[in-house]
Amino acid sequence: MSRRVHIREVGPRDGFQNEPERIATDDKIRLIEALARAGFERIEVASFVRPDVIPQLADGVEVLNRIDVPERVKLMVLIPNSRGLDNALKVRERFHEAAIFVSASETHNKKNVNRTVAETMADNAVMAKRIRAEGLDCAAVVATSFGCPYEGKVALGRVLDLAERFAEAGATEIGFGDTTGMCNPAYAREFFAAALERLPGVEVTAHFHNTRGQGLANAYAALEAGCTSFESSFGELGGCPVPKGSTGNIATEDLVSMFHEMGVETGLDLPAVIEAAREAQRVLGRTLTSHSLIAGPIEWHLNDERIHA
Amino acid sequence: MSRRVHIREVGPRDGFQNEPERIATDDKIRLIEALARAGFERIEVASFVRPDVIPQLADGVEVLNRIDVPERVKLMVLIPNSRGLDNALKVRERFHEAAIFVSASETHNKKNVNRTVAETMADNAVMAKRIRAEGLDCAAVVATSFGCPYEGKVALGRVLDLAERFAEAGATEIGFGDTTGMCNPAYAREFFAAALERLPGVEVTAHFHNTRGQGLANAYAALEAGCTSFESSFGELGGCPVPKGSTGNIATEDLVSMFHEMGVETGLDLPAVIEAAREAQRVLGRTLTSHSLIAGPIEWHLNDERIHA
Repeated sequence: MSRRVHIREVGPRDGFQNEPERIATDDKIRLIEALARAGFERIEVASFVRPDVIPQLADGVEVLNRIDVPERVKLMVLIPNSRGLDNALKVRERFHEAAIFVSASETHNKKNVNRTVAETMADNAVMAKRIRAEGLDCAAVVATSFGCPYEGKVALGRVLDLAERFAEAGATEIGFGDTTGMCNPAYAREFFAAALERLPGVEVTAHFHNTRGQGLANAYAALEAGCTSFESSFGELGGCPVPKGSTGNIATEDLVSMFHEMGVETGLDLPAVIEAAREAQRVLGRTLTSHSLIAGPIEWHLNDERIHA
Repeated sequence: MSRRVHIREVGPRDGFQNEPERIATDDKIRLIEALARAGFERIEVASFVRPDVIPQLADGVEVLNRIDVPERVKLMVLIPNSRGLDNALKVRERFHEAAIFVSASETHNKKNVNRTVAETMADNAVMAKRIRAEGLDCAAVVATSFGCPYEGKVALGRVLDLAERFAEAGATEIGFGDTTGMCNPAYAREFFAAALERLPGVEVTAHFHNTRGQGLANAYAALEAGCTSFESSFGELGGCPVPKGSTGNIATEDLVSMFHEMGVETGLDLPAVIEAAREAQRVLGRTLTSHSLIAGPIEWHLNDERIHA
């Protein structure tokens, strides 16, 4: 089991995207900068989807232009199609990683981007080459890797075939997304062992949801299989909550808490991550659902006046 | 990894105990009978603590006398001391398993039962013999097995020494309780591998809390280490929520969901467990925190109108 992992914070894109109330650009910037101070080396901060489709992320260029983060922080933007890439490249010097994606399930891909998987992959291959030609890192995401809400189980071979095509097209990282939280730890272990074997030289990233409470169990199982790259969202924000009302992304602070308790380094300052989630709570005006927001890091457990009063 | 596990439902004792509002005896009985119908073969239903200490459980004898469950269901009662055992044995024919306990940490034991560990264990040895002499199963519980909120880490050897003494005294089952949720999956795996090796012929039971969201990860790790006996609480009820406001016991419906998705049999009807938790929600008049209460079993995911509308 590896003693060091890397976590990309996806809350400012994947999390904020699901917020019904518009978040002020100033608040977004303050939260991203707080996350950068907590030690993240990778943060997903914007999406180049059409503003009329996701108005919440319409200020992406302004966010990119205004955030002030240390050199070590690589900023990621999500690119849905070639037009999105055209727009992103207008601020090419403001980010470092571009993410492209496809759904492993035909039905989910059709409903998500209204194209077939083959059409999406053809466009993705062109985009990957353009992204790499710009000197940017290209992270490819395979959504519904562990199950599709319409089709059910998705064959492992199908998912890895898509991943391999992404790698051939130039992707330096492949993320596997549990879009609606259908993975379980036994399958996570089998899946990541197979993915790591099939994709040598490519960074393999796990993106789990906590829909049935198994998110951290899946992360532990993936770690055991050799995976060292994870994505999560501070405050357990966002991430396609399906079924409605359920939690989506795993909470960064809970993931970090688990890794630290196991002696696995993340390079992150857990209290600072929790403080960023608390600030998100204040900005959004509602109680967020991560466990560590209530319980704090385990070190606090021993010194918590709520226990020892 | 085993393909079959056994889950004891502890909600009617460990869960209800923490409810501030008195639950009507009729409601308790209806909920226990609903759990029995869901397929549990083991349910913890009462505690023989002093009624002035835990008024919520003062109707334990009435609950035991009135519940009507199938023959296969073994009912457990918690016994804090010899006086409690005296009282329990007055209704000896109404239950099958008696649980005795100690905290592995000296400070926690003192604060919990106001005696030293040595004093508690001396009394426990006498109680174990009396319980076995009555033809009852004796389950011994080591609380704070994975950490103490006052002392921090608790040595594995110290916990297993106590377990061995329980086994020598006649306990047929030893449960290891993560009383304030300080375990992590790497330690769960190490711990249960060691416990199973050290305690041949004794049933080794895992009792995890979800304080930092790691409850199911710990259960998966324990399963991987060979553990096949678990305790959990429907609706994620109760279980010493420390720090205040945090969740305690892992939710039975989430644990069952994870096992079933991995192809591990529990003998339980998951929709019936969820329905029992929903009924508990109605009785308690508040929203409970388990994930499966919202998301449902994974089979529903594919047919959920909230997704497919």
